[in-house]
Amino acid sequence: MTTFTPLKNDNFLRALMREPTPYTPIWIMRQAGRYLPEYNATRKKAGSFLGLAKNPDYCTEVTLQPLDRFPLDAAILFSDILTVPDAMGLGLYFVEGEGPKFERPLRTEEDVKKLPMADMDQLKYVTDAVSQIRGALDRRVPLIGFSGSPFTLACYMIEGGGSDDFRTTKTMMFQRPDLLHSILEKNTASVIAYLNAQIEAGAEAVMLFDTWGGALSHHAYQEFSLDYAKRVMAQLTREHQGRIVPRVFFTKGGGLWLESMAKMGADALGLDWTINLADAKKRVGHCVALQGNLDPLTLFAPPAVIEKEAARVLKEFAFDKNANGHVFNLGHGISQFTNPAHVEALVHAVHRVSARGL
Amino acid sequence: MTTFTPLKNDNFLRALMREPTPYTPIWIMRQAGRYLPEYNATRKKAGSFLGLAKNPDYCTEVTLQPLDRFPLDAAILFSDILTVPDAMGLGLYFVEGEGPKFERPLRTEEDVKKLPMADMDQLKYVTDAVSQIRGALDRRVPLIGFSGSPFTLACYMIEGGGSDDFRTTKTMMFQRPDLLHSILEKNTASVIAYLNAQIEAGAEAVMLFDTWGGALSHHAYQEFSLDYAKRVMAQLTREHQGRIVPRVFFTKGGGLWLESMAKMGADALGLDWTINLADAKKRVGHCVALQGNLDPLTLFAPPAVIEKEAARVLKEFAFDKNANGHVFNLGHGISQFTNPAHVEALVHAVHRVSARGL
Repeated sequence: MTTFTPLKNDNFLRALMREPTPYTPIWIMRQAGRYLPEYNATRKKAGSFLGLAKNPDYCTEVTLQPLDRFPLDAAILFSDILTVPDAMGLGLYFVEGEGPKFERPLRTEEDVKKLPMADMDQLKYVTDAVSQIRGALDRRVPLIGFSGSPFTLACYMIEGGGSDDFRTTKTMMFQRPDLLHSILEKNTASVIAYLNAQIEAGAEAVMLFDTWGGALSHHAYQEFSLDYAKRVMAQLTREHQGRIVPRVFFTKGGGLWLESMAKMGADALGLDWTINLADAKKRVGHCVALQGNLDPLTLFAPPAVIEKEAARVLKEFAFDKNANGHVFNLGHGISQFTNPAHVEALVHAVHRVSARGL
Repeated sequence: MTTFTPLKNDNFLRALMREPTPYTPIWIMRQAGRYLPEYNATRKKAGSFLGLAKNPDYCTEVTLQPLDRFPLDAAILFSDILTVPDAMGLGLYFVEGEGPKFERPLRTEEDVKKLPMADMDQLKYVTDAVSQIRGALDRRVPLIGFSGSPFTLACYMIEGGGSDDFRTTKTMMFQRPDLLHSILEKNTASVIAYLNAQIEAGAEAVMLFDTWGGALSHHAYQEFSLDYAKRVMAQLTREHQGRIVPRVFFTKGGGLWLESMAKMGADALGLDWTINLADAKKRVGHCVALQGNLDPLTLFAPPAVIEKEAARVLKEFAFDKNANGHVFNLGHGISQFTNPAHVEALVHAVHRVSARGL
């Protein structure tokens, strides 16, 4: 193992801890994905999305693909946020063009009562992938592990797939909050075990994706999403092999709630593109680093415009002349229709424009 | 005409102007709609959604239906936000279960160049409906006219229907902002003419729905949505038949931008359920009234919970003991799966709980 060899590039980890870095590090949500022809080739080889996601060799292959193209400052484990409910027995499957579904969504009190914790043995393919990716990375950049938040997982588990209005989930929330809390308890314990297993296997930072928390009222968000995410953070392994494992928390559409998010135990908050980073930093920059926040569709602009927009985001963060504590990213996953050459333009622009003295 | 007869209940108009009212008035976005069996009966009679929306008799019938059931404090014209682009020649049609579509979406420079202003003659069915509804209301409550915002209309016109990510619209925004601006100019002029015609025909308040502005970055929102909405407000008829015509502006997902929205010329801002009304009022309550903001899915709760949640919203607004300047509403349109008895419970709860001395 090479785990004690220092990282060649640890700017991402340093930025999450608000330490100085020579430039603003960048990675891209869903950076290993369908916009890359080499990803599509591996997926074809694997036969299906789950055939890819459950095979550590393929996961390693696709995790490294964007790093071989672009000088990104972090790798993120290739996986799906729904591996955890799958390991709780819900039967994850994918319908082409429709996204993820569960064979056995949670609808009745009986369903909720018999819901087990995630079976960590069934998730061995994930921790195997983490170890294998760590080996393959050979200390180039840090590896990010991740999970869906307890609430976001619950949405999928109750709806049985995606939703526009989360009607089934919210009906349970308003009619039987006890059942939703019971699911959230089990999700919380499962997510803690899952993320700690990823850290044990070699993940050097972890990110908790609260993709659907933003669908809640400010009031329900605190009770049903943030409180459980906070419990996850409180029970994660803080240090592994002599180094702090930084934590990122991201609620899409959570910009109004930054003050409470900043106190939830994360080292950094992910932000979507609706917020001005200068405002976000004024509100919480003394507590946490910030990750974001370019509109992913900006990558459909010509390279010169991409560069201008990237410079705008960097400048918003560094309005006070302190550029530390910022990890550049998109405000949401990259679109599958993105031209990879535009990603290259973005990565280079961020590195060049942010080189200190900015 | 009975237009100079005073309104029997003008609490809605007074609350929009932040004048005292004996209780907090309430209306419900999409209050005339599919959750009401009598609406579905009229729609069946009309043959199709457009057959309903383009017939002033049917529009009058469905506009009044919720008022005959519930003691609501305002009526809102039954119509569709896409009547304007339809009258600009785009060919509105509906596919069951898929929402609105346009036969001729705007894709090329040529499409944009030849786009005409809305033909107001083609929108006569709307102004006829307004006059007829005014007659039928017989001064019970005020009638709200409305339009989609220039940006929201542009999204539909460019995408040709709904969208998850507004990829086509944003591609134009990033690649050819001049074309998007050109569409927005024409939409702005059309919306001004359309709303002024509604005021002339008898609308006693107007609301501008910016359903999709929240999909933009904070930066693009100002340039492509708010600036045009502001221009609309500036050119609306301020007074009609001796009374001010109050204006409401609603950007779904716009909670982060309240300060700039409060200065856009509206008398009131509509708010979705992600914001705490106490915070919103602290930020902008000296400039504008606030309309909202119960999560529409709250109506799936048992009536006792609905009452508790309504009381929470009322209390958040009146945290400073001043309950004036609040119009109760949902934070978005009512779900078609709502039980009408629960709407009744909400309306009564709001009136009862908010009766001054609250």
